[in-house]
Amino acid sequence: MAQDRFAPPHGAFTRSVPVRFSHCDPAGIVYFPHYFDMFNGLIEDWYAAELGYDFAGLVMGSRYGFPFVHIECDFKVPSRMGDVIDLTLLVERIGCSSLGILIICHRDGVERLRARMVTAMMSLETRQAVPLPDPLRDKLEAYRRRTNAE
Amino acid sequence: MAQDRFAPPHGAFTRSVPVRFSHCDPAGIVYFPHYFDMFNGLIEDWYAAELGYDFAGLVMGSRYGFPFVHIECDFKVPSRMGDVIDLTLLVERIGCSSLGILIICHRDGVERLRARMVTAMMSLETRQAVPLPDPLRDKLEAYRRRTNAE
Amino acid sequence: MAQDRFAPPHGAFTRSVPVRFSHCDPAGIVYFPHYFDMFNGLIEDWYAAELGYDFAGLVMGSRYGFPFVHIECDFKVPSRMGDVIDLTLLVERIGCSSLGILIICHRDGVERLRARMVTAMMSLETRQAVPLPDPLRDKLEAYRRRTNAE
Amino acid sequence: MAQDRFAPPHGAFTRSVPVRFSHCDPAGIVYFPHYFDMFNGLIEDWYAAELGYDFAGLVMGSRYGFPFVHIECDFKVPSRMGDVIDLTLLVERIGCSSLGILIICHRDGVERLRARMVTAMMSLETRQAVPLPDPLRDKLEAYRRRTNAE
Repeated sequence: MAQDRFAPPHGAFTRSVPVRFSHCDPAGIVYFPHYFDMFNGLIEDWYAAELGYDFAGLVMGSRYGFPFVHIECDFKVPSRMGDVIDLTLLVERIGCSSLGILIICHRDGVERLRARMVTAMMSLETRQAVPLPDPLRDKLEAYRRRTNAE
Repeated sequence: MAQDRFAPPHGAFTRSVPVRFSHCDPAGIVYFPHYFDMFNGLIEDWYAAELGYDFAGLVMGSRYGFPFVHIECDFKVPSRMGDVIDLTLLVERIGCSSLGILIICHRDGVERLRARMVTAMMSLETRQAVPLPDPLRDKLEAYRRRTNAE
Repeated sequence: MAQDRFAPPHGAFTRSVPVRFSHCDPAGIVYFPHYFDMFNGLIEDWYAAELGYDFAGLVMGSRYGFPFVHIECDFKVPSRMGDVIDLTLLVERIGCSSLGILIICHRDGVERLRARMVTAMMSLETRQAVPLPDPLRDKLEAYRRRTNAE
Repeated sequence: MAQDRFAPPHGAFTRSVPVRFSHCDPAGIVYFPHYFDMFNGLIEDWYAAELGYDFAGLVMGSRYGFPFVHIECDFKVPSRMGDVIDLTLLVERIGCSSLGILIICHRDGVERLRARMVTAMMSLETRQAVPLPDPLRDKLEAYRRRTNAE
């Protein structure tokens, strides 16, 4: 089967994650919900490292939530215990209160998994969607521009 | 916002799941990867109850794996600790070695979440896709017919 | 190795849990943190079934928390995918704001795992321990009496 | 309440773990089974960093398992989203096929949690305990000596 190649755009946020014993199932590969947990952690780290926001502060302090409203994921190559996989985050779409991100899991230039995820920003008090605040929006736009997201 | 209504087709496999403390995040709603874990459990129960196959036997005995190759999910209404949600499984497509299923999470006639998930059947020994065995295929076709999957 | 036998006392709260694919690790047995998750679910169900308290209401409504302060666990016989294990809950000690429970995991009369767990009752507002309310204490005492906890 | 102070012995293996949104429950603190998952990851990293063993290779290659046979844990100070906690691993006892380790979770010199965990080494083929191989035992002894485990 032809493999999909992937190289992160210059400046894209990438983190390596070791595939642990606890990620793997009796078939010896990552049990798929763990990928989504890894992605959530990646997004937290990206907020801090690239957008300058403390994710914990946004949730516990400012009482914002960022629930996912849509997820699409193609699993191409399984990962096994002991692999180290790279996760790259790109911004696809910046809506009024929604944010479309793309996460690519890859290793040695081969794409293993690709996920499109849309989050909404909401108030945990009113449980209503809130527009992305301008300072956050500016950071998101800047990240998208500098990473040439697909 | 208009709500999507859902009523399971006659004969469709439905299981109720209590939303537990452990499913919920600091925002008080189900942390989304847990839904995928619930879906995996639903599929296991469906194999036993509707297809007459022991999922554990297929994996540990016959050494088959059923990795997901594609997932799409729309999250419409969040669920909170103490809710009891109903999960209904329908068959969308029966391929050579792949199976497309639809899982709808609903409560009181309102759709909360809808997922399309495609699994492949593979040998854990050769790590290659294998065609769905005829007896399993017949059971899948029969289930699809009797539930009028959308 | 000699096996420990276990038979639940008359009236003890017992629930069966199927060991799922997702509970198991690459060694084919339950990955141990999942047991603690099962125990937490058992405790929720026990509050509802035996004590007449809605656990979600206690946490989300009355804003009580029940953090664990001590856990001890002996793992005796591993469990594998497809096993159905029985979990029995007994009350060991009722303190001022703490509760000592014993959970035994067993199957076919053989003890597989035994855990002693102490929870404290606290206010989520003040983050201080609170005494067990009398109605709850009465229910706990009654449960302990009728199950002759060891 | 008096706090327990903790300073890792010189040379002790310590890793920092960020407390993530996904670790926390509706009460806003780490849901306790996640600590055990963190400990398992810590042990894997310790095998690689301090003992020179690839944990994945031991399990998937050499077909050894390291199930826990006993766990004791005192939870002293809860951790919240956004905290960074330090986990230190010490060796308490080296048996024939068993290994007793001590994991202390701490931050800013204050002990938050202390766990004693005993693992056994077993063959995944025969499902029997196997003696710790001498090279591994030597590494364990050396680690214990150089860290002055309590």
